[in-house]
Amino acid sequence: MQELGKQQKMVIGMVGLPARGKTYISRKICRYLNWMGFKSKVFNIGNYRRQICGTDCNSNFFDPGNKDASKARDECALLALNDMINYLRNEGDVSLYDGTNTTKQRRKLIMETLQQKFSEVQVFWVESICNDEDVILRNIQLTKLNNPDYIGKSSEEATQDFQQRIEQYNKVYEPIDMDENISFIKIIDIGNDIMIYNIQGFLQSKLVSYLMNLHIYPRPIYLSRHGESQYNVLHKVGGDSDLTQTGLMYAKQLGKYFVQELEGNRNIKMFTSTMQRALHTSNEVCELLGVEYYSLKALDEINPGICDGLTYQQIADKFPQDYEERKMNKLTYRYPRGESYLDVISRVEQIIFEIERSRLPVIVIAHQAILRCLYAYFHEHEVPEIPKLNIPLHQVIKLVPAAYYCKETRIKIDPMTGNWEIQDEATIKKVKSFLDL
Amino acid sequence: MQELGKQQKMVIGMVGLPARGKTYISRKICRYLNWMGFKSKVFNIGNYRRQICGTDCNSNFFDPGNKDASKARDECALLALNDMINYLRNEGDVSLYDGTNTTKQRRKLIMETLQQKFSEVQVFWVESICNDEDVILRNIQLTKLNNPDYIGKSSEEATQDFQQRIEQYNKVYEPIDMDENISFIKIIDIGNDIMIYNIQGFLQSKLVSYLMNLHIYPRPIYLSRHGESQYNVLHKVGGDSDLTQTGLMYAKQLGKYFVQELEGNRNIKMFTSTMQRALHTSNEVCELLGVEYYSLKALDEINPGICDGLTYQQIADKFPQDYEERKMNKLTYRYPRGESYLDVISRVEQIIFEIERSRLPVIVIAHQAILRCLYAYFHEHEVPEIPKLNIPLHQVIKLVPAAYYCKETRIKIDPMTGNWEIQDEATIKKVKSFLDL
Repeated sequence: MQELGKQQKMVIGMVGLPARGKTYISRKICRYLNWMGFKSKVFNIGNYRRQICGTDCNSNFFDPGNKDASKARDECALLALNDMINYLRNEGDVSLYDGTNTTKQRRKLIMETLQQKFSEVQVFWVESICNDEDVILRNIQLTKLNNPDYIGKSSEEATQDFQQRIEQYNKVYEPIDMDENISFIKIIDIGNDIMIYNIQGFLQSKLVSYLMNLHIYPRPIYLSRHGESQYNVLHKVGGDSDLTQTGLMYAKQLGKYFVQELEGNRNIKMFTSTMQRALHTSNEVCELLGVEYYSLKALDEINPGICDGLTYQQIADKFPQDYEERKMNKLTYRYPRGESYLDVISRVEQIIFEIERSRLPVIVIAHQAILRCLYAYFHEHEVPEIPKLNIPLHQVIKLVPAAYYCKETRIKIDPMTGNWEIQDEATIKKVKSFLDL
Repeated sequence: MQELGKQQKMVIGMVGLPARGKTYISRKICRYLNWMGFKSKVFNIGNYRRQICGTDCNSNFFDPGNKDASKARDECALLALNDMINYLRNEGDVSLYDGTNTTKQRRKLIMETLQQKFSEVQVFWVESICNDEDVILRNIQLTKLNNPDYIGKSSEEATQDFQQRIEQYNKVYEPIDMDENISFIKIIDIGNDIMIYNIQGFLQSKLVSYLMNLHIYPRPIYLSRHGESQYNVLHKVGGDSDLTQTGLMYAKQLGKYFVQELEGNRNIKMFTSTMQRALHTSNEVCELLGVEYYSLKALDEINPGICDGLTYQQIADKFPQDYEERKMNKLTYRYPRGESYLDVISRVEQIIFEIERSRLPVIVIAHQAILRCLYAYFHEHEVPEIPKLNIPLHQVIKLVPAAYYCKETRIKIDPMTGNWEIQDEATIKKVKSFLDL
């Protein structure tokens, strides 16, 4: 049996001047691919350069006329390329080669090296072009000034040096040309304007759709499970039971929370499942907010197949082998006649596209397994961890994705009193640790 | 409750010189959208011109310098535009405006008219560019020579006149420019090279993915249900029963059929579901062919929810209201805790993308409701008809999509003797009737 998109190893090569969001894009792609079950890794040439040549490199180091530095930089690029090839030869499905790769000659060299090393490999290039000086400047200030290359430098000094570094690259920059006869996507000003050439197969096509829907406007994403259901109380899986009295009270309190949180903004997108407990929770919220929701089967809870309506104890008694198998690997275990977490990921993928595309605040009211999958997408969790993520009842998870991290706040809502307890304000992940600098 | 993509009416305007596949593309889009549940219709300006100005128009009629003819052509374009607006004001979700629309001024006029008539309307332009003279010539010969404009003309005469007509348009042709500030996709040489600008929302994004995967290489698509299952014999719905002895024999005969049909070509794509009866049928076929298959949950049979394992008689007895509701509207009826045909369409959509993208022969071994949905996509069936389509057991449906029709052959295979009976060779639909010329 084959798996879609897994016939060939793939290399995704980034192209573009510094501060064009290449690292942002390659990290997003990498996260998306891993989440979909393709083992993927970013190889950032800059990190190799910093490890090998140190961080004390000012813009002169990037002058194409500086022969020694050029040679050192070429060596770093080759080292990254080699590691990438080894990764693909071993466990990896997709390698992302995150560097400027600004000349035709460089891209040709990479293509030739890869073709020598693999009998069959797909290479897909992603060029990020941005001509908006404000965006570039913001990008420099947001992501480059914390860069170890600029420790101890003033912000002005660092910005100026980085702009000079960009100029050095610009001297030799050749945008991808159709004559190079490579598969590529050019992204101009992240998502607005896109050019695609010679796209092949499942994975490249997925990536194009994904990249088409990206934008860099910040907006919050709110995740909440439905209120407590009758099956929750009985510890039964599956079913389509309605809310308990407590669950209904949560729904009302949740509505009040959103009224205050959104300050009367009705310009939002709200998604829910087709199940009673989610619909009834959403109805209460929508009534207070004066908005409508999308009810989607893709957000229905994981289907427990033949275990529907049983407690975990009953499953252990009735289907001991299934119970054990699931305990061993909750991610890939598929309930007989039901679904696995991987099945769920593949059907909620369309919701990820909807959320990514939205420039408005998004509310998702759904179910434990569903929200585990969505949450993991935003947080760069290892896929095998997904079935263990903590998504309790009666809690809102507010996510605000930013360039290299996702800000998270958890709001625990007491269904009885309506009191909120803000839980995890401190889980903001720092740019630096995320960038592995 | 809202439905994804249905907030705004949409107009899709075609742009391009004659014989660039605009009609092909707009018909494909229209079929795809209708299949997805968006009421869509193509308004072909050429058909208005033929109705109003007659068919005796040689290339001089298309000379931009010919004032009278220009005026008449403008009037036809306006009439089509008006009908299109009325369609959107009434039942329509999406109108496709199929004409050359080759000048900026024309596109501006259309934009302004639409903005006057609707407070909110999305306009999305699709420009088809083809510079391959062979493809253009083939296109002329395949689709234009049967055109009523050329009745009674020799093939050479008609081709030459049509080429002159293209030249007339070329005099004033202005490809879409970013300065026009409109949302567009440019398709160069159908699918190879694509430019996207200012894409917004669910439906436009879907369309781009769809158009990205189109190609014009002919290849057969084979659909077959699994062999007879135990539940088939018991007249029960749902379940995950295995093949009967007869079903297993069909599987073996099906393999033999494909060995002969494909003449040893192992370069094919084969998709099946995750259900026992489909997997076991596919295993038999693959063993003989020496190929592998993709097993996808998206191809699992429609989920009958609480009716799983019942006969229709039992459903009528146990759930009389559901039984009646389903009989009234089999398309939208969703089995409690199960699926409707519309739910199935939305999950098999990804398979349509896989099939469209494939340049290799495709085999799908699946289930009745699933194959009804796939078959309807290829055959321009009205969506409400889908649940009634005839997809019997032990029959292969071979489809070969061509420019404006889909060639169909049905091969009935006797599970016992392995004899084939070729059934519907004559269902080829003629270009002419499909084009409503």
